[in-house]
Amino acid sequence: MRLARIAHAGGVAFASIEGDEVLEIAEHPFGNPNFTGKRWPLADVRLLAPILPSKVIAVGRNYAAHAAEFGNEVPGSPMTFLKPSTSVIGPNAAIKLPAESERVDFEGELAIVIGQPVKNVPAARAASVILGYTIANDVSARDLQKADGQWGRAKGYDTFCPLGPWIETAIDPSDLALRTEVDGEVKQSSRTSLLIHKIPELVEFVSGVMTLLPGDVILTGTPEGVGPMTNGQSVSITIEGIGTLTNTAQA
Amino acid sequence: MRLARIAHAGGVAFASIEGDEVLEIAEHPFGNPNFTGKRWPLADVRLLAPILPSKVIAVGRNYAAHAAEFGNEVPGSPMTFLKPSTSVIGPNAAIKLPAESERVDFEGELAIVIGQPVKNVPAARAASVILGYTIANDVSARDLQKADGQWGRAKGYDTFCPLGPWIETAIDPSDLALRTEVDGEVKQSSRTSLLIHKIPELVEFVSGVMTLLPGDVILTGTPEGVGPMTNGQSVSITIEGIGTLTNTAQA
Repeated sequence: MRLARIAHAGGVAFASIEGDEVLEIAEHPFGNPNFTGKRWPLADVRLLAPILPSKVIAVGRNYAAHAAEFGNEVPGSPMTFLKPSTSVIGPNAAIKLPAESERVDFEGELAIVIGQPVKNVPAARAASVILGYTIANDVSARDLQKADGQWGRAKGYDTFCPLGPWIETAIDPSDLALRTEVDGEVKQSSRTSLLIHKIPELVEFVSGVMTLLPGDVILTGTPEGVGPMTNGQSVSITIEGIGTLTNTAQA
Repeated sequence: MRLARIAHAGGVAFASIEGDEVLEIAEHPFGNPNFTGKRWPLADVRLLAPILPSKVIAVGRNYAAHAAEFGNEVPGSPMTFLKPSTSVIGPNAAIKLPAESERVDFEGELAIVIGQPVKNVPAARAASVILGYTIANDVSARDLQKADGQWGRAKGYDTFCPLGPWIETAIDPSDLALRTEVDGEVKQSSRTSLLIHKIPELVEFVSGVMTLLPGDVILTGTPEGVGPMTNGQSVSITIEGIGTLTNTAQA
């Protein structure tokens, strides 16, 4: 299933996208969603962030070539940090470039969406607690990230966590092509098979630390090729089998 | 007002504590709370975390003597990181020591509780957006903190953010005594006047980065004297004019 959150003429809802049609879901998409019977052409609705997570856990330096591009070692354990829920925006929303940063980077990433409240999930059971996968841009104020040491500010600005365009629930995430383009020019091109800490291991690791709630999101890390966005530039992240998440940078 | 969250025989509620009595608040404590008319003796209710924040923003190295005890410089800007909402517990709840850490430390801190949705609050207006102040223990797995570099794991375990016992809404936080005791022995003793980045500046800084929602919590940093907690030890943090937050460590 392709799960989205939409704004339609009558309000906001979760929905399932089937081809060019959008079918409204009653209440929430966890478990076996109920449908209201309302449907619209996809072109008539606006896609929002497909989920509003209670928390976003991100993993740093999880592709060797990206760790290397900043001269960093690959960590033995996943290096985790949090992005605030207030940083989440949806497809086509503007990424606001803060005046106090001289360099704000895109980071295309595969995102895991959790489907149920869980703690201490063994890797072998990880797939059963995952609702699906979406695309994330782990937007980072690179200069502030280096200056601060801890990344709460540099990765926590409002609009710094674009998610979408939807959540794919039936996909094997282990070897998907990931590509980031800025104004049509390819900047990142990699595959999720190059993740150092794989998805089942990440779910085991993170859920061994903290309770995960339905809708919580784990960003799996970005491959090499990160770089700056400037005012007016359009950033599109495409992951095979999911789709394309596009946002425009705005000073 | 002294605002608490309580469990009573009929459920859970916000409440105002007046002396030895607890007055139930209808719905939430923001704005001008309404009272239900129900009241109980304080001894008959159980205090919960006084708020369930959508996010907890913490500030590192905000007392010079604490930065020095680990050989760190005092940062020019507040060094911020996030603790997950799932790490919050209330007074007298157990702090669970994870098996994979050899040293879990207490860190007594003054906590700011935000009272309304805000962005870009100037320091001069900070007091008007603050609901009140409570006490926090920024529990930290010291070995994992050093090993990981980013502190998402080391400070993010379930139970690693005790808050309470209540929120004091009518207090001047600028020069309060703070004391942490482990099994009755004083470990930290300082004053909030020694905060490097003061409360109005912290509110301006954090709200300049991210939207703050009602109930969001800013931990202002810990003074010198941090140290480990071991199984069965009781940690009590007392802040003048607020009260005492006590939790017991449990392996």
